[in-house]
Amino acid sequence: MTAPAIPPVSADVLARLKALLGEGGWSQDPDRLAPKLVEWRDRWSGTTPLLALPRTTREVAAVIGLCAEAGVAVTPQGGNTGLVGGQIPQGEILLSLERMRAVRDVAPLDDAMVVEAGVTLAAAHEAATAAGRRFPLSLASEGSATIGGLVSTNAGGTAVLRYGTMRDLVLGLEAVLPNGEIWNGLKRLRKDNTGYDLKQLLIGAEGTLGVVTAAALKLFPVLASRAVAFVGIEDPHDAIRLLARAKAETGGQVEAFELVSRLGVELAGKNLPGVREPLESRPPWYALIEIASGEAGAAEAAMERLLAAALEEALISDAAVAQSETQARAFWAVREGQSAAQKSEGPAWKHDVSVPVSRIADFIEAAGRTLEARFPGVRIDAFGHVGDGNIHYDVLGPVGVDGRLHNDLRDAGAHIVHDLVMSLGGSISAEHGLGTMKTEEAAGYKSAVELATARAVRAALDPGRIMNPRVLF
Amino acid sequence: MTAPAIPPVSADVLARLKALLGEGGWSQDPDRLAPKLVEWRDRWSGTTPLLALPRTTREVAAVIGLCAEAGVAVTPQGGNTGLVGGQIPQGEILLSLERMRAVRDVAPLDDAMVVEAGVTLAAAHEAATAAGRRFPLSLASEGSATIGGLVSTNAGGTAVLRYGTMRDLVLGLEAVLPNGEIWNGLKRLRKDNTGYDLKQLLIGAEGTLGVVTAAALKLFPVLASRAVAFVGIEDPHDAIRLLARAKAETGGQVEAFELVSRLGVELAGKNLPGVREPLESRPPWYALIEIASGEAGAAEAAMERLLAAALEEALISDAAVAQSETQARAFWAVREGQSAAQKSEGPAWKHDVSVPVSRIADFIEAAGRTLEARFPGVRIDAFGHVGDGNIHYDVLGPVGVDGRLHNDLRDAGAHIVHDLVMSLGGSISAEHGLGTMKTEEAAGYKSAVELATARAVRAALDPGRIMNPRVLF
Repeated sequence: MTAPAIPPVSADVLARLKALLGEGGWSQDPDRLAPKLVEWRDRWSGTTPLLALPRTTREVAAVIGLCAEAGVAVTPQGGNTGLVGGQIPQGEILLSLERMRAVRDVAPLDDAMVVEAGVTLAAAHEAATAAGRRFPLSLASEGSATIGGLVSTNAGGTAVLRYGTMRDLVLGLEAVLPNGEIWNGLKRLRKDNTGYDLKQLLIGAEGTLGVVTAAALKLFPVLASRAVAFVGIEDPHDAIRLLARAKAETGGQVEAFELVSRLGVELAGKNLPGVREPLESRPPWYALIEIASGEAGAAEAAMERLLAAALEEALISDAAVAQSETQARAFWAVREGQSAAQKSEGPAWKHDVSVPVSRIADFIEAAGRTLEARFPGVRIDAFGHVGDGNIHYDVLGPVGVDGRLHNDLRDAGAHIVHDLVMSLGGSISAEHGLGTMKTEEAAGYKSAVELATARAVRAALDPGRIMNPRVLF
Repeated sequence: MTAPAIPPVSADVLARLKALLGEGGWSQDPDRLAPKLVEWRDRWSGTTPLLALPRTTREVAAVIGLCAEAGVAVTPQGGNTGLVGGQIPQGEILLSLERMRAVRDVAPLDDAMVVEAGVTLAAAHEAATAAGRRFPLSLASEGSATIGGLVSTNAGGTAVLRYGTMRDLVLGLEAVLPNGEIWNGLKRLRKDNTGYDLKQLLIGAEGTLGVVTAAALKLFPVLASRAVAFVGIEDPHDAIRLLARAKAETGGQVEAFELVSRLGVELAGKNLPGVREPLESRPPWYALIEIASGEAGAAEAAMERLLAAALEEALISDAAVAQSETQARAFWAVREGQSAAQKSEGPAWKHDVSVPVSRIADFIEAAGRTLEARFPGVRIDAFGHVGDGNIHYDVLGPVGVDGRLHNDLRDAGAHIVHDLVMSLGGSISAEHGLGTMKTEEAAGYKSAVELATARAVRAALDPGRIMNPRVLF
């Protein structure tokens, strides 16, 4: 399906939107709009006739109701940290949730809190911590990314292995549906079997089935001990075996299990200030393992047991356990700095893919072999969340090659990577979503029955296709 | 919405169904049908013109496709352990999944297995155990309940506190949609953001949006240590505080946290063979706590720490830690025998409700006060999964009262209990679903917007409303 052209919004509709939002509730000021119309890596830019800045769920409902009535398209936007262009309007009304940032309630005995869509992930972390609890979703853009966007994109990050994605962390939602009605599903129940679980439709729908205005989120106990290690491994096959061992050894207390390649560590050492090689043995692959426990000292003990067993079984060649919080942060900086470390090396083809955990090594081997044969000299920086099967498979151009030449081959490269991913039962968008970037490509990989079902659901809830019309099927 | 009358199925459709299913693929033998037409507690009985017994997903698709074309209604049935009548046909074709019981694949490195809908929960447990893993869903009817039914009712049980409900345990599904098409969503990915998560629609839909034919399920590490304790508490408020303490102390390794009342323990002692009072101090309330860990000895140590702290803070009055597997089973027998223990006491009004964990004590107090004022002498056996907010709130008649008299007041009692539950932000069906028993009542508690949305989704996928038409909205 080609994205429909967005017709211009009439002056009458704009005037009515302004009237209902009131002073301060909207903007057409180019300076105010500019940062919301560009994706942060400059890959997408857009336009909008009006930025709507509702303060309340009722105001959101009024905006959507008016747009539904007038057949005017709307793009909701959270912290504008999306990587696939879904949040950048192409002529639609732009609905920002930035003024809805109340923490409505934190209930430690329910292990739950209710926050509005515009609350940043960092602020959500703080609210949980202040109540003696923890909200475990963890990703690099936490200072900007907002709860509404994180719900709408079913955000993942580094703690999915233990806690799941945003879908697993939402107890209830409040949302404005495409017809402008408010749905109050803000429950904080762990068990509720009374019909279809409508919140599941909104989670990960990228704003196409309504606007999330608030969420009830699960909280977890604060953990009493944490151990972080960088280990050297021969190849990704050993990483998979090591992961299984780590999960068994700790009974499921592995917080994160990330893979980094020799190239990744070298790029970090070369291009990031203060980053050093974590292991003097300079192994071909590295795993970053974090274990956490509710018992003081238990994480450190479990890590020691795990590493001793893994060394004895030759699953790892070397290991360094962080001896301080500073060192733990330094280890994580190597992993989290991968995108930044690539920047001065020219453009990279980036693939956010997942495969079943058992196929990660097969994927990395086969993709590398095929790409190197087809594009001699490319440098592959494969890293990411081995624990949940999600690899960020980034392909840099050969040393010294013109970045534009490498960019021109991006789609050909993606095609190879994505075909391989699909042949292994994987996904071409593990955690970033489809947005405008991958919608068409994903449609090509999906079955007719799945596309027809998704379209039927969408048409049932948004017959005028006003919600983020360029995005999804 | 009143349940639509099911029109008789024509001889032509029956002949075509028989032809496509072949010999052994269907039955009209009253003896063969009888056990599938009665709910096990005898609360519902039904009729069907034909029992379809497909062997493969393709055969299921052929049956549903023919029914969709002919406008004939179908009720899918798993192990027939449902408690709300959803699986008992009232004139519809009865589709049993009992012959689809293959374990298609167990993949320990993916912590996943793919099983067909007719596999019992007990067989799924065995398949996981044989591969050195664990499938944690746990409920009393595991020998009969099947994966298809457990998915379709989003089953809960005693391990929801730690592992979630069936919804949280499903990685992927294969299903036949109401138009007879096969949807293959049998992924085993932990992260996949490529559009609406269609499996979420089928989970908990009670067979109204399609027939689940197979599921990819999450597996977990086998745990190395386990500690089970029965503790005495003054009232449910202390149980909530104790639960919070247990979660914090163990960093989330509480496997189960169940509440039983003095009456419940007494009934078990009186009516169940071999059950003894677990605590000589005979406290007014009891909590059954299970902690499990990946580390040998750690669960026992955590339990000891927890109980010492709880005794010191006077959260508990007494405690007994199981010293053997036999004793642990004996403790669990008191909790799991609650329904059986009530039987010789006459009929009980049973309520499967949930409230936010923090409101459990308020609920139990207020419900007891109101019911005892309105129905003097009723005996309340409130027990269940405090850890996830799900109380089985059972009300026995006064000692010696005629069971029929008590039964006649059932709906009046349910009305009081359910009104209170809703006022506390709870659910009138925590884990059993709505079926034919609670659909109409639940509709009365739901908002118009929620009902309209659910109906729009259903009409989009099943315009002829052939799938389990009496059930849900």
